Amino acid sequence: MPIPTAIVVGVGAERGLGAALCRRFAQGGYHVLAAGRTLARLDQVVATIRAAGGSAEAVPTDATREADVQRLFDRGMAPGEGRAPADLVVSNAGNNRRLDFREVSVETFEDFWRVGCFSGFLVGREAARRLVPLGRGTVLFTGASASLRGKPGFAHFAAAKAGLRAISQSMARDYGPQGLHVAHVVIDGGIDGERLRSRAPQMVAERGEDGLLGIEAIAEAYWHIHCQPRSAWTQELDLRPYREAF
Amino acid sequence: MPIPTAIVVGVGAERGLGAALCRRFAQGGYHVLAAGRTLARLDQVVATIRAAGGSAEAVPTDATREADVQRLFDRGMAPGEGRAPADLVVSNAGNNRRLDFREVSVETFEDFWRVGCFSGFLVGREAARRLVPLGRGTVLFTGASASLRGKPGFAHFAAAKAGLRAISQSMARDYGPQGLHVAHVVIDGGIDGERLRSRAPQMVAERGEDGLLGIEAIAEAYWHIHCQPRSAWTQELDLRPYREAF
Amino acid sequence: MPIPTAIVVGVGAERGLGAALCRRFAQGGYHVLAAGRTLARLDQVVATIRAAGGSAEAVPTDATREADVQRLFDRGMAPGEGRAPADLVVSNAGNNRRLDFREVSVETFEDFWRVGCFSGFLVGREAARRLVPLGRGTVLFTGASASLRGKPGFAHFAAAKAGLRAISQSMARDYGPQGLHVAHVVIDGGIDGERLRSRAPQMVAERGEDGLLGIEAIAEAYWHIHCQPRSAWTQELDLRPYREAF
Amino acid sequence: MPIPTAIVVGVGAERGLGAALCRRFAQGGYHVLAAGRTLARLDQVVATIRAAGGSAEAVPTDATREADVQRLFDRGMAPGEGRAPADLVVSNAGNNRRLDFREVSVETFEDFWRVGCFSGFLVGREAARRLVPLGRGTVLFTGASASLRGKPGFAHFAAAKAGLRAISQSMARDYGPQGLHVAHVVIDGGIDGERLRSRAPQMVAERGEDGLLGIEAIAEAYWHIHCQPRSAWTQELDLRPYREAF
Repeated sequence: MPIPTAIVVGVGAERGLGAALCRRFAQGGYHVLAAGRTLARLDQVVATIRAAGGSAEAVPTDATREADVQRLFDRGMAPGEGRAPADLVVSNAGNNRRLDFREVSVETFEDFWRVGCFSGFLVGREAARRLVPLGRGTVLFTGASASLRGKPGFAHFAAAKAGLRAISQSMARDYGPQGLHVAHVVIDGGIDGERLRSRAPQMVAERGEDGLLGIEAIAEAYWHIHCQPRSAWTQELDLRPYREAF
Repeated sequence: MPIPTAIVVGVGAERGLGAALCRRFAQGGYHVLAAGRTLARLDQVVATIRAAGGSAEAVPTDATREADVQRLFDRGMAPGEGRAPADLVVSNAGNNRRLDFREVSVETFEDFWRVGCFSGFLVGREAARRLVPLGRGTVLFTGASASLRGKPGFAHFAAAKAGLRAISQSMARDYGPQGLHVAHVVIDGGIDGERLRSRAPQMVAERGEDGLLGIEAIAEAYWHIHCQPRSAWTQELDLRPYREAF
Repeated sequence: MPIPTAIVVGVGAERGLGAALCRRFAQGGYHVLAAGRTLARLDQVVATIRAAGGSAEAVPTDATREADVQRLFDRGMAPGEGRAPADLVVSNAGNNRRLDFREVSVETFEDFWRVGCFSGFLVGREAARRLVPLGRGTVLFTGASASLRGKPGFAHFAAAKAGLRAISQSMARDYGPQGLHVAHVVIDGGIDGERLRSRAPQMVAERGEDGLLGIEAIAEAYWHIHCQPRSAWTQELDLRPYREAF
Repeated sequence: MPIPTAIVVGVGAERGLGAALCRRFAQGGYHVLAAGRTLARLDQVVATIRAAGGSAEAVPTDATREADVQRLFDRGMAPGEGRAPADLVVSNAGNNRRLDFREVSVETFEDFWRVGCFSGFLVGREAARRLVPLGRGTVLFTGASASLRGKPGFAHFAAAKAGLRAISQSMARDYGPQGLHVAHVVIDGGIDGERLRSRAPQMVAERGEDGLLGIEAIAEAYWHIHCQPRSAWTQELDLRPYREAF
């Protein structure tokens, strides 16, 4: 039986969600295309997977560029001998930063949209184009609490993430009945990953054990959604650390 | 190591969600207290579990009566030698029927509330009283699309289910930081169980394969929520068949 | 032309929302049936309206009793010579108090439901029965932020209010196309009324000018909803003081 | 006393919402800056207002261009002798069209975002910059049912509108306590305006009287929000014709 293939867009540091998703899917028997902007980081993620006996490859990708995303799917849908075309796709690109709304430049607002929403459009559209004709597959979008409401200082981020959520809903309604499982994960809380550990080590310390979202735990939830039989699909779930106020 | 104990409130027919939850938890190594109004049905569920090598017992319970629910938890928290007190509780009582709002009697409106909301209060409160001091455990509530919005002809049902959801949210915010995982599952669509098969066989036939919610698939989702590590808890997720419009 | 009639359920102190609604409707040319539990308070509200040249009458009503609500509508639909049957109804009964969930008694939970949800069912059902055949009218429900989400310590209140909201939605979907305008007002924040002024005078002082919801301002919003032409009806709006965090 | 000034962005045909807003505000005593792409249409709107004794001027504006929006606000904040700086701003640009998601080009997706979301960012940011220091004012955003959920065939539109709503929420939370009233109007249903009348005359006929949203009725709701005292502000309301399913 051919090995199934997964595409994870938005892979960065080893201690980041993208990398954890790659590892989880590889562990689940998938050949994983790790897609992100920095080849060195992708190589590291791939090396770790291979060292653990898994299968992966690095595909340098700027998720905000149509040609890059199409090339990625070209590769994912023809992954080589003994491998099946991709049937599991994650759109995980994103960044975040609090900004004074009045100071947000046109460039910054657009950048947040390109990374947080437009990249999801490119990935989602390409997945729909390639997977709907096959009548199967899973597309997962990484959301945030900002997907649901705009908080002070986060208009730029929330505008992108709310848009991404809308794409996931439209896709789910359009393609669910055709066999494509589209889901949106609301990540509510800080992720215990390299970004926070390097930028806000004190916050990480204060939160204590399990006070931040564990990347392996998040990856497990994505994997579970993918494994759901089509008689009971989830379109949206939230994830937060037990201590997180909401 | 002692066997863990689960309490499932709202167990009826073998081909119903309550029974499927009992079976899934037993399969996961739990001793299951199957609680429902009809002893004969509970006995059947227990027999099936035991025949498969699992452990379960029937606890006849009217989930709308305080004394019954307290007796159930008394039993669940002291399940006997070799068994640990309950740490997994499901509030699954419920019924549904479309009614002309102007024809809904005071008795009917109250009945729907007692079964759909008040029973959840009794179960949730008892779970909080018993589990919060232990600093661990999972409480799961069965919701419906009516939990999120009132549709024509379903005011009585939606009023109960929306109230139940509010309880689950308050509990999650109150007790999550104390280690109690409280989650709400939005069941959106018809369940492929005895109720629909006996009452609406034509609808079941029309939906086709996987066109209704599979009870085993739903039970798997409950189990997964229970298994989440506290660094990434879900408070709410929806479940619907792939073909369901929403 | 006959004078139109309004029914306001949940009228208490002069400095409360119910009383302000009565005054606003009277000022808009309505004969107002002020319904509440305490005759002395109703009499005061009526006296104030009459002193200002308006028309009103007190109808002692326990909004949680079917017979009371039916008698109120009997009166409202046959208000006497020169007056038209009621076409404006408000369900405004309610109370609120933070409680430790584990300490909430069965009686307390049920009381909150009777006042906050069941009374709305009685009023809404009676309004539907009487107004839908006429093909016109407005039914307004007083909601709260708890209608939308359950906060810690407010499960009992949120369960009732979320249920009330579900009723308003079902009714709107059922009866809007038949000419009945059903709307729900989410009151988010403390009301600058007698309750808070007597129970929490310090909080009132700290909030400063316009830091609490003005009852006249709220009443104006209800009036505006009633005045909307049927080509652009509001089903739900929120109201909060400008300084309120949300 | 100086005449107050309003800025309406997204003014097109006389029988469109933008024009109706201009007329309503002029009728309310405002000098109105009618901003839109087509000068001839703006001139017509202005002429109608002047013929009715109101005050208005046309300001040709591409709401997706920063320089245009800044020039518009430069004008609005210094509107000339006898006039006060603008304190009422509406972001009303938008368009809509059902599209097959897989066929949506990068250009189309971006266009919808520029008109439906980015223009709102430009208008909202400029309003915040100019009005927050004055501690007063109203900013209103025109939303749609797509602001709340993504339907099949409308991912491009919903992604923009959901983003716009997030901006309005962030702004409301940021600037409400500083005296700026930010609100979002969910227009749910077809607008009885030139667009539908020319493109879908049959649909207009089928809907019958009041079966589509009346532009004057919508404009009245905007005006009412603007008139709310700060002790009871609305952040969001929906508007739909009485017959509209939702």
